[in-house]
Amino acid sequence: MRLAFPLEKLVEELSKLPGIGPKGAQRIAFYIMKLPEKEALSLAVAIETARRTVKPCNTCGYLTDKDICDICTDDKRDNNLLCLVEESKDLMAIERTRYNGKYYVLNTSLQFMNGVDLTGVDIEPLLSIIKDSSISELIIATNPSIDGDVFARYIANVTRDLGVKVTRLAYGLPIGGDIEYVDQITLTRAFEGRKELAE
Amino acid sequence: MRLAFPLEKLVEELSKLPGIGPKGAQRIAFYIMKLPEKEALSLAVAIETARRTVKPCNTCGYLTDKDICDICTDDKRDNNLLCLVEESKDLMAIERTRYNGKYYVLNTSLQFMNGVDLTGVDIEPLLSIIKDSSISELIIATNPSIDGDVFARYIANVTRDLGVKVTRLAYGLPIGGDIEYVDQITLTRAFEGRKELAE
Repeated sequence: MRLAFPLEKLVEELSKLPGIGPKGAQRIAFYIMKLPEKEALSLAVAIETARRTVKPCNTCGYLTDKDICDICTDDKRDNNLLCLVEESKDLMAIERTRYNGKYYVLNTSLQFMNGVDLTGVDIEPLLSIIKDSSISELIIATNPSIDGDVFARYIANVTRDLGVKVTRLAYGLPIGGDIEYVDQITLTRAFEGRKELAE
Repeated sequence: MRLAFPLEKLVEELSKLPGIGPKGAQRIAFYIMKLPEKEALSLAVAIETARRTVKPCNTCGYLTDKDICDICTDDKRDNNLLCLVEESKDLMAIERTRYNGKYYVLNTSLQFMNGVDLTGVDIEPLLSIIKDSSISELIIATNPSIDGDVFARYIANVTRDLGVKVTRLAYGLPIGGDIEYVDQITLTRAFEGRKELAE
């Protein structure tokens, strides 16, 4: 017995979402069918509204429902620091640290293996920001992957003559991790980056 | 930094779904923001359409976009057998077996501990079907739980004088399971239900 067509269509749409398999999609679809109609529609409306009103900030690229996001208009932040991230979710992770500078969100997952070309990433807006503002340090917080590294080095190159210091987040052991289970590359990087203990 | 309000609303709605935690909801929300607008809206439309057009079958209660579902109108099925299940998803699981009779879907999760009263489950439509049709056996396939058992016995009682045989699915070891890890109640039931091996 197949599902009723509209229900099958819903399962199909749900199973496209990340982290949701066919079983999970079916479970969610049945759950939605049992919700009061108003609640089910409020999910649909939330999707529509978010997709229609939320866009990248005109300045930094962070997802916002304003023209310029709250971070860019926040005058308590350190305008000397600019942190470059791939996605808005990376920015949110960094906001949980003590970092209090500005951001630049690429809105591109750097996966060059999948055919994304370095020259395909539009970095002109970034260069304009660096030229036109008081930024003294550009902190590159692309993902700790080969693609993230390649891109970091590329950015360091193209910004060399702009008088801005370019840094990259440190590699090393994750806090709470177990050396036994840390992968070889991370462990190698942790050795390379070892620091002298202050007395 | 908080998310833009419409995005936060979307995360909130998504995290109400079963199997989706706050992290997963955020991941899905960001994914939806990166989808082409058309694809994002097709998910919203799928939710609306399914919720608006799919209803329980007027006869058996299975979720369908017709008045009477395809199972009820299927004349190749055995009209002598009626299988009672709690939810449409239980029906779908049974459809993967060789069962080829009709169904009756309660559309109620039997959880009496949470305050659902036996008398709160409307079984009049079921009794009408039994009285007005050629059913010879009512197979109760409520969940293998105390609530499912209580309900099965209740149904057996109220249908006693209707001239229909009432059966319950067998309890026992799950195929592929390991006796060492089978819970005590299941193992007890498997002993009680043990069968003589034919020579």
